Amino acid sequence: MKRIITYGTFDLFHIGHLNLLKRLAAMGELTVAVSTDTFNEGKGKKTIIPFEQRLAIVEGCRYVHRAIAEESWEQKVEDIKKYQIDTFVIGDDWQGKFDFLKDHCEVIYLPRTEGISTTSLKTSLGFLKNINKDELFKALDILETLRNDLA
Amino acid sequence: MKRIITYGTFDLFHIGHLNLLKRLAAMGELTVAVSTDTFNEGKGKKTIIPFEQRLAIVEGCRYVHRAIAEESWEQKVEDIKKYQIDTFVIGDDWQGKFDFLKDHCEVIYLPRTEGISTTSLKTSLGFLKNINKDELFKALDILETLRNDLA
Repeated sequence: MKRIITYGTFDLFHIGHLNLLKRLAAMGELTVAVSTDTFNEGKGKKTIIPFEQRLAIVEGCRYVHRAIAEESWEQKVEDIKKYQIDTFVIGDDWQGKFDFLKDHCEVIYLPRTEGISTTSLKTSLGFLKNINKDELFKALDILETLRNDLA
Repeated sequence: MKRIITYGTFDLFHIGHLNLLKRLAAMGELTVAVSTDTFNEGKGKKTIIPFEQRLAIVEGCRYVHRAIAEESWEQKVEDIKKYQIDTFVIGDDWQGKFDFLKDHCEVIYLPRTEGISTTSLKTSLGFLKNINKDELFKALDILETLRNDLA
């Protein structure tokens, strides 16, 4: 059986995440690296759900063999060696960006499926209703407070 | 091994749901009945995530042996017989309400754990920031639109 790895944030776990994990598990034994809050901060990215909870929920998914922390851009080669990974899979919005891993394993860019994503779910809060910028900022502010409450 | 059943909505799947399912799975083989949208409507209850997705995510949880639809108040006795259930478990906010099931199986009211719940998560959107009633209604309106978008 092949060993597969993917990387992601998995904020507000939804059906798109589930279907992705199911699809990857059909390819082999699946390791999922979940980005830490510190790593996300370095990218200027904030999640609603804190890291420990995102990790636990991914770990709780029956399609996942192992969930680990993604703490840096550089750890991928190390992860591939440590877990004897055969195939690295990432969304095709990253097309070409991880070709340097081909020295270590197969690299697959997966076409994004239509429909729900965390980003669309979040931006929907603002844009679906054509609310204005002030209202959008207020919504983001509420989400930020909510996030702190959950932390 | 005992056969356990519980009933719930499992909207916006979160760490509280995960911990509950893990705890129940430690008691035995776990069947989870997920309330349908039609059943919820009859109770004047709306979810953000549509039934099919809530069901799939519960099914995707490694602690769940079987996920079924909860379509009516009356189906519980039938479910208990059909799946040869030994223990019915529900939150202690329902204390006493399901004692009539004791003719068919053990009934356990589980103390609610502290912390996150879907209701608190949703009301947080409104109340944490002390936003006024108009703003709360606007937030609920956005959530409703979002829900329709996901359906």
